Formats: sequence, C-alpha cells, structure tokens
Amino acid sequence: MKSYRKELWFETKTRREFINITPTLEQCLEESGIQEGLFLCNAMHITSSIFINDDESGLHHDMEIWLEKLAPEKPHTQYKHNGFEDNADAHLKRSVMGREVVIAITEGRFDFGPWEQVFYAEFDGKRKKRVLVKIIGE
Amino acid sequence: MKSYRKELWFETKTRREFINITPTLEQCLEESGIQEGLFLCNAMHITSSIFINDDESGLHHDMEIWLEKLAPEKPHTQYKHNGFEDNADAHLKRSVMGREVVIAITEGRFDFGPWEQVFYAEFDGKRKKRVLVKIIGE
Amino acid sequence: MKSYRKELWFETKTRREFINITPTLEQCLEESGIQEGLFLCNAMHITSSIFINDDESGLHHDMEIWLEKLAPEKPHTQYKHNGFEDNADAHLKRSVMGREVVIAITEGRFDFGPWEQVFYAEFDGKRKKRVLVKIIGE
Repeated sequence: MKSYRKELWFETKTRREFINITPTLEQCLEESGIQEGLFLCNAMHITSSIFINDDESGLHHDMEIWLEKLAPEKPHTQYKHNGFEDNADAHLKRSVMGREVVIAITEGRFDFGPWEQVFYAEFDGKRKKRVLVKIIGE
Repeated sequence: MKSYRKELWFETKTRREFINITPTLEQCLEESGIQEGLFLCNAMHITSSIFINDDESGLHHDMEIWLEKLAPEKPHTQYKHNGFEDNADAHLKRSVMGREVVIAITEGRFDFGPWEQVFYAEFDGKRKKRVLVKIIGE
Repeated sequence: MKSYRKELWFETKTRREFINITPTLEQCLEESGIQEGLFLCNAMHITSSIFINDDESGLHHDMEIWLEKLAPEKPHTQYKHNGFEDNADAHLKRSVMGREVVIAITEGRFDFGPWEQVFYAEFDGKRKKRVLVKIIGE
C-alpha cells in the first residue's frame, strides 16, 4: 500500500469564496503515482468546506444566496458563538456543504462524471487556512 | 490490495425519485470478493445524491416536502443558474443530501446498523445518469 | 493491509445531544497500530450523525437552534413518518449533519487541523445506539 499526503494553503481576499482546486488535486495525484485507490480531500479548518459540484458562476451565485438564507451571517448577535468571534454562520454553512470528499482513483486518474469539479469553499476568509490531501492505494 | 470498480445506470421517469440500491451494491461487493476494506459509492452527476437512511415511504415523502422547502424548484427564474437549464434547485438539494457514502466492509459484508439502506436520490431525472462503485481492500 | 473494527455504544439522557468522541477514537487508532491509512467513523443508526467541528458550547447551542429551525421536531403530526414513531425530524437533522467522517491517518495519528474535533450527534436519544469505527491502512 502506498500513501501520499500534502497540505494546500489558501488565503482569500473576501469572507466567502469558492475556488476550483481540481487542477491542484490532479497534480497531487500525479505526484503520488497511485493508480488504484481512494483520494481524501478535507478542509483542516471548521469554517470551510470541500465539495464537488458544477463550475458555473451562476450556480455559485445561487449557492451564496441560498447558504446566506439557510444560515445568515448577520446580525452577528443572533449566535452565542459570536462573543470574541463573528463566524458562527461559517460553522453552519460548512455543516451544510460538508468537510470532505472521497474520490475514486482508477488507472491513475480521478474517476469522475462529466461535470464533477472539486471546490474549496471559504466561509470565513481573509486569513491563511489549510486543506489536506491524503491518498492511499497502489 | 484489491480494487473493484463498477458504473450503475439510472433513468427515472420523474424529476425526483429515491431508489433503494442496497441489493445492487451487495451484488457489487460479492463480485469484488473483498472481505475487509472500504466501499465508496458516489453520484457521478452533480444533481443527484447517494445517502443512507430508512426505507420508509412516509419518511421519503417528508424528505421530498422538506427539500422542496429548503431549496424550492420554482419559480425557475429565482436562480441565476437557470438560463439554459432549470435544475439549480437540484444542485442545492444534492448539496444537502451529499454526493457519496463510504461503507465499512467486514468479513465480506456491509457493516451496517439495523436500518441502514443506501439510496440513489435523483433530483433532475428523466435522463440517463450514472453512479460509481469503488471498493478497495483485501 | 491492516484493518480494525470497533463498535461504540451511546445512550444519552436527552433526545438531542452532542458528545465529543475524539479521545475514544484516538484510543481505537492506538489499538489498531495503523500508521498510514483512512479512518471511517459512522453512525450505525439513521437518526444520529458523526461530524467534525469546534468543541465550543456556544456553537453547539447555535447548532441546536439552527437545526430545530431547519427541521423542527414539533408538531409531530407535520410528518408522515410519525405514525408509530415521532422522530422524523431526527432523520432530517441527521441528513444535514451527515452520517460519517473519513479521517486521514499519518504517522499513527489523526491528521487534523488545529480545531477539528469529532462529535456524535444524537437526535433521537434515550436509548442504546451504536457508532462504527473502521480503519484500513498499514
């Protein structure tokens, strides 16, 4: 069994942002040399997500509006978590969108459907945050 | 390390539908001959989900109503994604219900609790769509 | 390839509760002797979740309020599932929070960010329920 590990770093300019990290993850997979196995990618922080969906700007706009409706940022005082911090909504948004994805590796490539792209979702940005890649297989 | 891969195809008659795929997945597991390992099952399309819950028609009815409340299909014009398409709500519903499940394999069987059943959730059906099975183990 | 399996049992005194199970999972990992691999932890019941987030009581209070808003317990009669049971809301809350987490194991330890903690989320407690740990690796 082979294993591979890498940390990716992100620092967004805005509080919330979606970043397509598929090309970066493909580089990790190539570096690993793993042909058959499972690829785990997870946010290492608890106010961000990794998710798979469409790379379409209209959809990302809809998601921003939708998540803000499900778990509004403001007023900050509506949340008990917001004493020293103001990011309770980011913890909730991340709960909807998920911490991690597990991707099948087949013949050295992501075994994806036609539109699957991997995104880093930042819900409390403007600071350095990490994502973990771990691959196991052969 | 052994690995196994299979694509499953679905074409629902309605826009939204839940299909119990547990028996089909059990066949895959048997075919694989894997006794100990991890079983990944994921939607290959970004408007459908794989999830584990109860096979109870009342609950499925409740889920349909609930998801429609969280991410309503209509009016289609409320979503920017809905230019050439009308399925923005399906992308959001899938975000709630998740893309994938990872199931433990123990002694050649799904290591399930008493009521766990695996479902394919279609949120934008009436066309051919795929689900991926990938198993790794020994 | 090594594999490890354990069942954890919980019986909460209240209907809903979040329990930090990170120390228990760390014991499982140590027992397994696995240095590199993937650690799956899933609820074996369909009205509870495993999730990773912050161990902060204010946030847990916010999550309780938030989940109750997204999928209210009462009135019980609003759900078709609630014939002989009254736990439809628990099935929905668990759908938001997720069934499982997959954690990277690196050098015999959880490969976690600074605040990641694993929780058992009970949404229909006051009875014995199980969580599964399955680790594969080397």
